[in-house]
Amino acid sequence: MIHEMLSNYQLILASASPRRKELFSLLGLNASIIPADIAEPLTEEKPHIQAMNHANNKARFVLNTVSKGQIVIAADTLVAIDTNVLGKPKDEEQAREYLRMLSKRDHIVYTGICIGLNNHILCDYEQTTVSFAAITENEIISYLKTGEPLDKAGAYGIQGYGSQFITGVHGCYFNVMGFPIRKFYELLQVLLRSLEQ
Amino acid sequence: MIHEMLSNYQLILASASPRRKELFSLLGLNASIIPADIAEPLTEEKPHIQAMNHANNKARFVLNTVSKGQIVIAADTLVAIDTNVLGKPKDEEQAREYLRMLSKRDHIVYTGICIGLNNHILCDYEQTTVSFAAITENEIISYLKTGEPLDKAGAYGIQGYGSQFITGVHGCYFNVMGFPIRKFYELLQVLLRSLEQ
Repeated sequence: MIHEMLSNYQLILASASPRRKELFSLLGLNASIIPADIAEPLTEEKPHIQAMNHANNKARFVLNTVSKGQIVIAADTLVAIDTNVLGKPKDEEQAREYLRMLSKRDHIVYTGICIGLNNHILCDYEQTTVSFAAITENEIISYLKTGEPLDKAGAYGIQGYGSQFITGVHGCYFNVMGFPIRKFYELLQVLLRSLEQ
Repeated sequence: MIHEMLSNYQLILASASPRRKELFSLLGLNASIIPADIAEPLTEEKPHIQAMNHANNKARFVLNTVSKGQIVIAADTLVAIDTNVLGKPKDEEQAREYLRMLSKRDHIVYTGICIGLNNHILCDYEQTTVSFAAITENEIISYLKTGEPLDKAGAYGIQGYGSQFITGVHGCYFNVMGFPIRKFYELLQVLLRSLEQ
């Protein structure tokens, strides 16, 4: 299990996201937080490529600041609907626009995840389909009042008030929270096995 | 949204489950806890019927102890795989047996949910398919050491160390945590609308 595999390593989480920190606690992990303060402009590339690139940039940035033997973990989450890729909304007006876009539809959440150790960075991504209920203009107004949409990719938090708009998830739930736990476990097995060789 | 609909009601959660309490906090709800201490023997009935019956019994039990106008919320979660219905394991040996049963397979989680107000109890259920990775005997030993399996239906907690064994969820994630939030929102709309008439 993850906490056993990592018991001899110092962990650095390259993210200021309280959700990711919470998931680390769930797994019984202690990590230092060193947020990678990097601008992440959206591009025309496919969303899973962008998410992996962002995570890779974060991992590389933080890996340069830590000691040898420390494990750096970075992730980046994006929401895709039709040809639109949604990051964090820049203001309430954009949050409103995103929520109208998601209403009564399925969308896909992508998280790029990278694990860095010494000179190696291993990356992968996870994708999950999320089904949103029809939400009314009144619900959007109420939801904006909670303050939750503003710092979340796609303008909603599944682990919060936003939970009541979600009719279903298809794939890894933790990916939607911003950190695909099973994928992390699998990547970690690959990384640590490669060290033994 | 739920916290607005319930702002004028006193809420009673008929469950001692810390997961359900946590989900109430996520939704911005304050509830008093009055656990319904009722034995829940498994029967030959279909799992969704059993889950609803158990939730109904809990709701009815607590509704008899509270004042008029208070809303009682009860839920019961079961895991079904093939023709087996799994509640909480009675000991480590049964937990081990359950985990072996779930390994590398899909199973279904059912939660019965009941909302009681005055003389009315409204019930429904939610079902979610969960995909489990292949888990090794060593992982089972490690997982049992965490102590997590013993108080959970099906011997795993999705919101804990157990998260690393889950490859996917199909349906409501919160149902697997023991409380189907979207279903609760919908039931609440039905209940409160019926009061207005």
